[in-house]
Amino acid sequence: MPRTKGDHEARRRDVSEAVWQVMATRGFAGLTLRAVAAELGATTGLLTHYFPTKRTLVTYALDLLEQRTIARPRRPAGKGLIALRHALMDILPLTPEAADSNRIWVSSWDAALSDGELSADYARKYAQSRDKLRDRVAAAQELGELLPGNPAHIAAGAQSFTLGLVVQALFDPAAFAPQRQVELLDDYLATLAAPCSSNNDRSA
Amino acid sequence: MPRTKGDHEARRRDVSEAVWQVMATRGFAGLTLRAVAAELGATTGLLTHYFPTKRTLVTYALDLLEQRTIARPRRPAGKGLIALRHALMDILPLTPEAADSNRIWVSSWDAALSDGELSADYARKYAQSRDKLRDRVAAAQELGELLPGNPAHIAAGAQSFTLGLVVQALFDPAAFAPQRQVELLDDYLATLAAPCSSNNDRSA
Repeated sequence: MPRTKGDHEARRRDVSEAVWQVMATRGFAGLTLRAVAAELGATTGLLTHYFPTKRTLVTYALDLLEQRTIARPRRPAGKGLIALRHALMDILPLTPEAADSNRIWVSSWDAALSDGELSADYARKYAQSRDKLRDRVAAAQELGELLPGNPAHIAAGAQSFTLGLVVQALFDPAAFAPQRQVELLDDYLATLAAPCSSNNDRSA
Repeated sequence: MPRTKGDHEARRRDVSEAVWQVMATRGFAGLTLRAVAAELGATTGLLTHYFPTKRTLVTYALDLLEQRTIARPRRPAGKGLIALRHALMDILPLTPEAADSNRIWVSSWDAALSDGELSADYARKYAQSRDKLRDRVAAAQELGELLPGNPAHIAAGAQSFTLGLVVQALFDPAAFAPQRQVELLDDYLATLAAPCSSNNDRSA
């Protein structure tokens, strides 16, 4: 029976899912043709049809990570401070799917930092992400929800806070359950908002 | 001529330095016997004397990272808020040496997240680090330099902020020069300190 285009696309989806699962559990360091084949229940030979070299597998995995990040469900932006909060919550590992995705991002940093081109590409992506946050900070300032100050500086701070919280939550999901992540984020946002006395008033 | 204990220790220092340099430039993913041998100007055969398996090389590298982190120069603690600031500055990649060390830490996260035992070990280390920060937060609160609030929460926030700033600075050292890192840290600390109107007043 001849293979159809539908078969081909279904197989491609299966391969993508297998690559994703291997990255989520073993990271980029554990991403091998053999591991993907085992996840897929296929032979390594079949995989070499898709990925003739390790490099093509890594490139594919990085593309997949970017596509899934772009396509991930997001909270509605809303207005002002709430839009900033939603953008930062969209980054945090608050669901198992977001934890997988973040774990793969963190894992990819090793490869990215060792490759000049990839590193520059990551730097551009993070700069774009800060620019979007900056616009949301500025909008919240216009509404009087955030204290005045350089919105680019505040956005860089918010991005730092969120990325570092991601790393801590990945290593210690018990200490950084979703609810605590959101509390920490809200405490942080409260320090950026007037009046200052409302922040850090939790005693638990 | 018989080898002396001094020869052996000198060789061991050379090996450590070569492992460190490979990690700083290529990360854990690029840490191979061949790369260490090339860095050392030795044969791979010699290296197998020290590291019979890849696993022993990785374990050695992780130990080296921990030892060098413990032994790194630190700012004098000082009192209250200044002690908290110094502890956070000691983490940031403000010098080339600190950038190498941070780059190796970030690189090690991939391996650590894929290994249950190692991951638990990292979680313990970060928790210890937060405990130390918590004590400094509490001391600064007692001196009235920081707003009241749960010091463990504030320490977790400060650790998040600092780790995320490390990651951004590694990817984009031009956008996060040492001076800007310190400015961002000081802006962050200012939001935790009273009065709140003093924060984020930079216009540059």
